[in-house]
Amino acid sequence: MLFLNEKAMRSAISLPQVMDQVEDAYRIYASGDFFMPHRISVTHEDNTLIYMPSFQKDVLGTKYLTIFPGNPKKGLKYIDGLMLLSDGETGKILSIMDGSYLTVLRTGAVGGVGVRLFTSEDSHSLGVIGIGSQSFYQILYATASRDIRDVYLYNHSPKDYGTYISDLKTAMGSDQPHPAFHICDSAAALVRQSDIVITTTNASHPVIPDDPALLKGKHFIGIGSYKPDMREFPPAIWQLVDHVYTEMPYACEESGDLAQPIEEGLLKTEQVRYVGDLLNGMQARGEHQDHRPKPPQKGETTFFKSVGMGLLDLKVAQLLYTEAIRKGLGQAVDF
Amino acid sequence: MLFLNEKAMRSAISLPQVMDQVEDAYRIYASGDFFMPHRISVTHEDNTLIYMPSFQKDVLGTKYLTIFPGNPKKGLKYIDGLMLLSDGETGKILSIMDGSYLTVLRTGAVGGVGVRLFTSEDSHSLGVIGIGSQSFYQILYATASRDIRDVYLYNHSPKDYGTYISDLKTAMGSDQPHPAFHICDSAAALVRQSDIVITTTNASHPVIPDDPALLKGKHFIGIGSYKPDMREFPPAIWQLVDHVYTEMPYACEESGDLAQPIEEGLLKTEQVRYVGDLLNGMQARGEHQDHRPKPPQKGETTFFKSVGMGLLDLKVAQLLYTEAIRKGLGQAVDF
Repeated sequence: MLFLNEKAMRSAISLPQVMDQVEDAYRIYASGDFFMPHRISVTHEDNTLIYMPSFQKDVLGTKYLTIFPGNPKKGLKYIDGLMLLSDGETGKILSIMDGSYLTVLRTGAVGGVGVRLFTSEDSHSLGVIGIGSQSFYQILYATASRDIRDVYLYNHSPKDYGTYISDLKTAMGSDQPHPAFHICDSAAALVRQSDIVITTTNASHPVIPDDPALLKGKHFIGIGSYKPDMREFPPAIWQLVDHVYTEMPYACEESGDLAQPIEEGLLKTEQVRYVGDLLNGMQARGEHQDHRPKPPQKGETTFFKSVGMGLLDLKVAQLLYTEAIRKGLGQAVDF
Repeated sequence: MLFLNEKAMRSAISLPQVMDQVEDAYRIYASGDFFMPHRISVTHEDNTLIYMPSFQKDVLGTKYLTIFPGNPKKGLKYIDGLMLLSDGETGKILSIMDGSYLTVLRTGAVGGVGVRLFTSEDSHSLGVIGIGSQSFYQILYATASRDIRDVYLYNHSPKDYGTYISDLKTAMGSDQPHPAFHICDSAAALVRQSDIVITTTNASHPVIPDDPALLKGKHFIGIGSYKPDMREFPPAIWQLVDHVYTEMPYACEESGDLAQPIEEGLLKTEQVRYVGDLLNGMQARGEHQDHRPKPPQKGETTFFKSVGMGLLDLKVAQLLYTEAIRKGLGQAVDF
């Protein structure tokens, strides 16, 4: 049995590999060839345990997360946990890995796939609202997917941007020139200057101004809002797009960025499309050599809303395990 | 983070230590100072994943089991899994251990506590019905708790008793003379010769003859029957005992050995008593120096029915972790 910590996981894969694997997971979702019950949570006092089981042909697994709101005050992670990866035929544990790092790695890749599929190829500026561990990987994947020259950052409360930016530069490596980083005074200023806008907040009210003129022609990717009472996007977005892409029908219940506009009559469920269908359709029709649809044109407003799913964790964990074996990474555990 | 496999776990503890810890877990259950939701299970095709969360003051954890009916044919375990032990304050993972071995170790200790509490001190013969990994530890704990001179074995289908008995002798060590082992032709012959009878089968119909004269004056411990459609004990038992001990009220729904007699009017819920109350009451009243009630007399018919619970796994895992640290056992994992 192979144990993989953050360091081993980071060395095992490249960002484009993880994005390719996330696209495969979406194709599997569209094909129906999987089993993924809704996530299970158990709460005691303020603390929550989450179990995310999923089954596919070769592998099955559970992402196990601990959510302890008192932890950040103690210098510990708010969300922590493990991914348990098993052989699909026998249930035998193949690998245990850092569940917290897996989460940021695959959520970053989801944003990166959103950039690949739903932003124009000549997007050169990226704005990120909500600065933390999630946004870190969103920036790495977005800059790995488009030729981003300027990155705009905004957080509603004060942040130590210096360390954050220098860590980003270290993670980006020195092969290519780094984008310029800019700290914004407001979300409006950030949106104005960005071709692509990614939101990664825990907000319960829109973090982007409700101004259609400001939002027009931008590519939006929503990563926060994974509960019905969370919302990052204003009503204005629905005047500008005729459809939204997400992962699965359940997203329309789970995310306030979809559930609330549906309830308010701003969004019809017929306008909700699924990224797996898009990828599968392209593949089936052979429309695009690398099985990806043509990205949108510059000036087209687009919106991709992700809520995540256990199948993404399972397939990314499988990639990490396979690549770690191939490269001799991780710690063998005598089970 | 400390990884403990079967070998490290076996070296970490003595059987009486585990029984003491199980008694403590029962006292904690009776005190109400814990949180333990019902076990959660997810089934896909023939295979099942089980999550058993439990929370106590210092520790919390999840026992994660995989049940794959096709495994024995492949030479793999029917039930396998992991115990994830965390710090109770922060959720931080302290230890991962073999969940399959933890299960047999704590279930054996439950039977051993049953022997301590519900069998006469001059019991010298033990009969075990249903021979496998569970019965192995039942025999080890029972012989560690009473001066057992004869062990009677019965299994409804043919078994390789030779290897089983020689493995038992190895596990018992050579400090003390081993009991004599006898293979029985029938459950009736086994019960006739045994002071203590432990059942560890997956039977859905009674494995003991429905004969009050045969059962009278014996001490019975039921370990199988953890589902409503499973039953090991015949109606005759209810003519001989005026109460049964078990672990928690939910056992009366979960186990067919209690649920079915209740439905048939053979057992009233007022006759069901709880081992934690027994241990806590004794402790509170100071009736017994070592906090255990006086065992029954020889010739008294007694019945202890266990269904297990996540709190037992949690407290035994805590003991294993603490003792492994103290003795420098296990494999440190760089998490």
